[in-house]
Amino acid sequence: MSASGKLPELASDAVLMKSAPVPEDFEEVKGIDYSKDSAFNMRAVDLINSMKTMGFQASSVSQACDIINSMRAWRGKHKDELPEHERTGEFDDEGYQKSTIFMGFTSNLISSGLRDTLRFLVQHKMVSAIVASAGGIEEDLIKCLAPTYMGEFSLPGKGLRDQGMNRIGNLLVPNDNYCKFEEWIVPVLDKCLEEQEEAMKELGSEGMNADSAAVWTPSKLIDRFGKEINDETSVLYWAHKNKIPIFCPALTDGSIGDMLFFHTFKASPQHLRLDIVADIRKINSMSMAASHAGMIILGGGLIKHHICNACLMRNGADYAVYINTGQEFDGSDAGARPDEAVSWGKIKAEAKSVKVYADVSVVFPLIVAATFAAEKPKTN
Amino acid sequence: MSASGKLPELASDAVLMKSAPVPEDFEEVKGIDYSKDSAFNMRAVDLINSMKTMGFQASSVSQACDIINSMRAWRGKHKDELPEHERTGEFDDEGYQKSTIFMGFTSNLISSGLRDTLRFLVQHKMVSAIVASAGGIEEDLIKCLAPTYMGEFSLPGKGLRDQGMNRIGNLLVPNDNYCKFEEWIVPVLDKCLEEQEEAMKELGSEGMNADSAAVWTPSKLIDRFGKEINDETSVLYWAHKNKIPIFCPALTDGSIGDMLFFHTFKASPQHLRLDIVADIRKINSMSMAASHAGMIILGGGLIKHHICNACLMRNGADYAVYINTGQEFDGSDAGARPDEAVSWGKIKAEAKSVKVYADVSVVFPLIVAATFAAEKPKTN
Amino acid sequence: MSASGKLPELASDAVLMKSAPVPEDFEEVKGIDYSKDSAFNMRAVDLINSMKTMGFQASSVSQACDIINSMRAWRGKHKDELPEHERTGEFDDEGYQKSTIFMGFTSNLISSGLRDTLRFLVQHKMVSAIVASAGGIEEDLIKCLAPTYMGEFSLPGKGLRDQGMNRIGNLLVPNDNYCKFEEWIVPVLDKCLEEQEEAMKELGSEGMNADSAAVWTPSKLIDRFGKEINDETSVLYWAHKNKIPIFCPALTDGSIGDMLFFHTFKASPQHLRLDIVADIRKINSMSMAASHAGMIILGGGLIKHHICNACLMRNGADYAVYINTGQEFDGSDAGARPDEAVSWGKIKAEAKSVKVYADVSVVFPLIVAATFAAEKPKTN
Amino acid sequence: MSASGKLPELASDAVLMKSAPVPEDFEEVKGIDYSKDSAFNMRAVDLINSMKTMGFQASSVSQACDIINSMRAWRGKHKDELPEHERTGEFDDEGYQKSTIFMGFTSNLISSGLRDTLRFLVQHKMVSAIVASAGGIEEDLIKCLAPTYMGEFSLPGKGLRDQGMNRIGNLLVPNDNYCKFEEWIVPVLDKCLEEQEEAMKELGSEGMNADSAAVWTPSKLIDRFGKEINDETSVLYWAHKNKIPIFCPALTDGSIGDMLFFHTFKASPQHLRLDIVADIRKINSMSMAASHAGMIILGGGLIKHHICNACLMRNGADYAVYINTGQEFDGSDAGARPDEAVSWGKIKAEAKSVKVYADVSVVFPLIVAATFAAEKPKTN
Repeated sequence: MSASGKLPELASDAVLMKSAPVPEDFEEVKGIDYSKDSAFNMRAVDLINSMKTMGFQASSVSQACDIINSMRAWRGKHKDELPEHERTGEFDDEGYQKSTIFMGFTSNLISSGLRDTLRFLVQHKMVSAIVASAGGIEEDLIKCLAPTYMGEFSLPGKGLRDQGMNRIGNLLVPNDNYCKFEEWIVPVLDKCLEEQEEAMKELGSEGMNADSAAVWTPSKLIDRFGKEINDETSVLYWAHKNKIPIFCPALTDGSIGDMLFFHTFKASPQHLRLDIVADIRKINSMSMAASHAGMIILGGGLIKHHICNACLMRNGADYAVYINTGQEFDGSDAGARPDEAVSWGKIKAEAKSVKVYADVSVVFPLIVAATFAAEKPKTN
Repeated sequence: MSASGKLPELASDAVLMKSAPVPEDFEEVKGIDYSKDSAFNMRAVDLINSMKTMGFQASSVSQACDIINSMRAWRGKHKDELPEHERTGEFDDEGYQKSTIFMGFTSNLISSGLRDTLRFLVQHKMVSAIVASAGGIEEDLIKCLAPTYMGEFSLPGKGLRDQGMNRIGNLLVPNDNYCKFEEWIVPVLDKCLEEQEEAMKELGSEGMNADSAAVWTPSKLIDRFGKEINDETSVLYWAHKNKIPIFCPALTDGSIGDMLFFHTFKASPQHLRLDIVADIRKINSMSMAASHAGMIILGGGLIKHHICNACLMRNGADYAVYINTGQEFDGSDAGARPDEAVSWGKIKAEAKSVKVYADVSVVFPLIVAATFAAEKPKTN
Repeated sequence: MSASGKLPELASDAVLMKSAPVPEDFEEVKGIDYSKDSAFNMRAVDLINSMKTMGFQASSVSQACDIINSMRAWRGKHKDELPEHERTGEFDDEGYQKSTIFMGFTSNLISSGLRDTLRFLVQHKMVSAIVASAGGIEEDLIKCLAPTYMGEFSLPGKGLRDQGMNRIGNLLVPNDNYCKFEEWIVPVLDKCLEEQEEAMKELGSEGMNADSAAVWTPSKLIDRFGKEINDETSVLYWAHKNKIPIFCPALTDGSIGDMLFFHTFKASPQHLRLDIVADIRKINSMSMAASHAGMIILGGGLIKHHICNACLMRNGADYAVYINTGQEFDGSDAGARPDEAVSWGKIKAEAKSVKVYADVSVVFPLIVAATFAAEKPKTN
Repeated sequence: MSASGKLPELASDAVLMKSAPVPEDFEEVKGIDYSKDSAFNMRAVDLINSMKTMGFQASSVSQACDIINSMRAWRGKHKDELPEHERTGEFDDEGYQKSTIFMGFTSNLISSGLRDTLRFLVQHKMVSAIVASAGGIEEDLIKCLAPTYMGEFSLPGKGLRDQGMNRIGNLLVPNDNYCKFEEWIVPVLDKCLEEQEEAMKELGSEGMNADSAAVWTPSKLIDRFGKEINDETSVLYWAHKNKIPIFCPALTDGSIGDMLFFHTFKASPQHLRLDIVADIRKINSMSMAASHAGMIILGGGLIKHHICNACLMRNGADYAVYINTGQEFDGSDAGARPDEAVSWGKIKAEAKSVKVYADVSVVFPLIVAATFAAEKPKTN
């Protein structure tokens, strides 16, 4: 094309195409108004409000807060208005139906400083049930026995193993902590086995029946751990105290599994058993009993799928907040958007849902600060 | 700085710094030599060889093939040279020790066309044990009953739910498949419960003891499914046939869990139980018995952690190949590099290990083509 | 292995390995102390302080704030103590050397609500130079003419094109905005060409010499845009006002390029030119002149590489904060950790540096709230 | 819920919902048929065919091959059928219109072993124009002077800098290579400046006019480099030879920029200039002239945006293949799906497009093996 050519219409038509009028309800992108005094050393709530119209994940974080506030604020009928068989799920202090909130988290969050935040939510009964991975159980207990330390992602593994230092991302857990854990847990497992065997003696061939006292499940064992640890810094302690079940179908997948493995040698020919069928019944029943159901899922993998699957039993959750770094392109459940769960009936089509693409440690402190911890809880 | 200034030494010293001599063993980066006839419509083995010096994940994929070839090629002592108590683990046809290979995969890989590849590995006894997530079990069975279809990542969830189409990434599973699955599995579960109850009657209060015939575990139930499905396209079928255990501690986390949940109502007051303690003993024992141990872990989450944890029981695997899209920055186990497992004693410091950062579906067909399927297997 | 076997020493030694004593300077992982009143509706500074020992990216965000505070707080010698030729770089109001801060951002951040935050930093002279991608220039100008709107990531492209709505992530820009932009920019370009031609007439064959008034560069043109737009909401306006250069070597890569392209037809045989060599001299000279240099790089690609490359001229930056979602596994510069830049001499080995793995929109508002905007600026 | 309850209908209705009949054109997910002899040590074409119905990124890779094959196979009218002013774009040997293919790549791909593959495509005129980042230009030249080596992602930066070893992901480039590059490039730049000044003398105040011989642009300089390097291993050499323009608007962003910077001191008061306006006209004109346009974009950032932007001038590309690891959640152009470009008119709504989420080094060798290099090219 010669330099003396005319302005090409093909290009100018494409570039300067007119647009349809902007609908009136369109919301303008805007950020923090720094002319305001509140724009300095901002509070969480103000930050979150400003992020709503910032776009990208800033607006997703803000939306996550809205959804959490909605699931917490929802109220249905009063208990007295309901027929007996519908008096299920959660009620507020005044007797009105409220949302059953399922919270899931992966092990690493308990290893991190987020444990204090998760414990805060359980301590103040802000969630109804928890699904955790095995490490999320044991690390909570172990932190009652000895601390976890700050490290670096790049510390070489061989040197750490030589020192007995286990790395979790940029955290370090001395292996002695697991030795202390073994000392703590063995007597508890002994006691559990004893109770199993006592019940078996009583029940004999009916020992595996529904509601059998002989049958331990992961959630029942975790509740016992929470009772035994008796430590106010512990998530499990408060879950026990507040009767918030913690589900962990693969409880053997970690240090507790190591200890249970060792225990089978010590106990032989007796053998502590952990049944996972009763627990699936328990979590599914909670889902069906809920008048409204919300999900707050921190991380991917089992804990994400498990909560979603339970919510299928009620034909979908009413609210869903996912926070994780997974991507959908590999077809993983971890990376799936909430809309994939809609296709399965695990989230209602009309539900409020959002996925925040971020490391939980970065956004959850801010989200909690702007929602659950926006003001001081009245009671314990 | 004025334009008439002199060439600044600060900058030229930094930019034109001399380097130390290049060590002789440094390997030059180079790619495919297109002057060769073999460079056209290449075979997998040639592609993989060329990728070794390409850098980035191309070289990681090539390294993964080297490690897989090493773990397959390793041979130790002859059975006859070993004292009785050391005759554990795997042996080749001629009686020499070989590696025990633990393969893990997530559910979505069974949903994808990789199922045929995974089945091929099991059919020809190329792996020793499997860890799968719950969906990896049920989708294998369901595919024997009805197909999964190609879809798109962007199909809206509401429309799919209205049609009863469940989306897994860019795949679609008609919900009817799960109805067929229910029809297939209920009689199997009935039979399992019957066997549990018969054994309980016989064993009474000893019904939970070690090696009790009354106790079902996930791996035992999966083996039964493999027997019952009796279909040569199935991974479970061949695992049963070839006595390759499949571990799945959270077997209730999916459609099988839904069915077990329903079954508790049907069976009441009887109750099928699934014990996960015996299974952790089983996989850990395999790890300890292995003369050498290799890990091939496709995806993240539970299946990755579970294999690594089992290998801690032997103070570390000798070979490790991770393929997943997780990143370490969020401290997740899914995203952790092999070197993190070294710090825990789950991979030996001197082991050969690599993490390939890629969707398994993209690289595993190529890797298998260049390793396990580089030539036609002799038997089976 | 029989169930009656003994506790296997191989496993117990590996699991219960003793660790070396924990060094005294190890820092314990801990989170927010919710017993404190300040733990409710937290302020940014308090959140950031708590995140320091939380681990994962929470601690990285906190570290980023520390580094930004350090680069801002650094003071060197007083002007009067320095020989004439060392009186380069930045000085504070009292005449002490301070850090030259290079800030880079990608186009999408200007499209998002972060523009207000970036403008705030420029308005109050909190940064010394900017590197932006082309969209980062034009979208700042366009937002002075018409708004950008909130949309959704999943809106189908065809429908949007039919409406003349351009999507940027979850934002929408009506195509009319670009028509308005054309109306605004054509007279400016006309004027620039006129000035070029006037100077050429005067300088003749010396028209391309150093410091020639005939030569426009991207940074010079951007400065002119800032002057012409004359709008206090604009980053470019304040950059012009405060003499903060904005570098954008590929200024033609976007709508401005479209307009320059059209302009070549209109202007022919005259032709506005944009020289990039003078600009590389300008940014490199700033780097060499700086007494200390800090980098705040928001996003990846050109803008990241360009700032790092400039800092090579001084044998490395003294402070570096990267915030982006890139990963190193593909060998991209976008995903490279600060330590890769150390190998090149672009960051000093002893520099303070961190990479935060996060969408900028999520963390930068919080980071700015806890650093630059922790208190109200005195002037401007 | 009591254990004696009935099977809950809420749950069973949700789980066992009937699906609509599967449409006849649905394609079943399936993988490699290992009963076939061709399933062993597979060829690229067979692998790619099998991947089509595997799902996730396997099917995306397969789709990318289909699209590349389509853009290569497309033929329009014969030259003789076209009016003079429509005889633009590319024609095959027999005179039929064919697609203009824009290929973009980032710097790291030239550093990697993919350089040989990219060179193959240029050598055999399989692409029409290239957009590269600055490193993609200089590393091609530098590799003609000295090799790049394999390294590791985890090598510490300080030790490398001490040795003068620059790291690019898991590759190492000795700094001496850049010293050799300086020696090579200075005489070339001298010559270019000489030519600029000669032309300026001749043209005087018209030296900046359209088509002025005094004006160097990045693409013109790159072409000269290709001529001067005169090395058959070089991408630039073949691009020069085959008149395939290479665009690089930010050519100063790297080692060439360092050399141009140094050169300004040496040349002063003369000053080599590089105009980017003429290049945007050149690439946009190619886009408008094309009868059909295809894009193959390897990596993100500038090179991705630049090709898409050029295709806006023709109201959209007809074919688009993106391969990169970027994600859309942060609103980056790098991570945007092809559908975002549809909203801008950069890809036609009816175009064939795909994004492959993968490190280019892993998938591009396979893709090329199954497309461009499926058979030996007839001529050079």
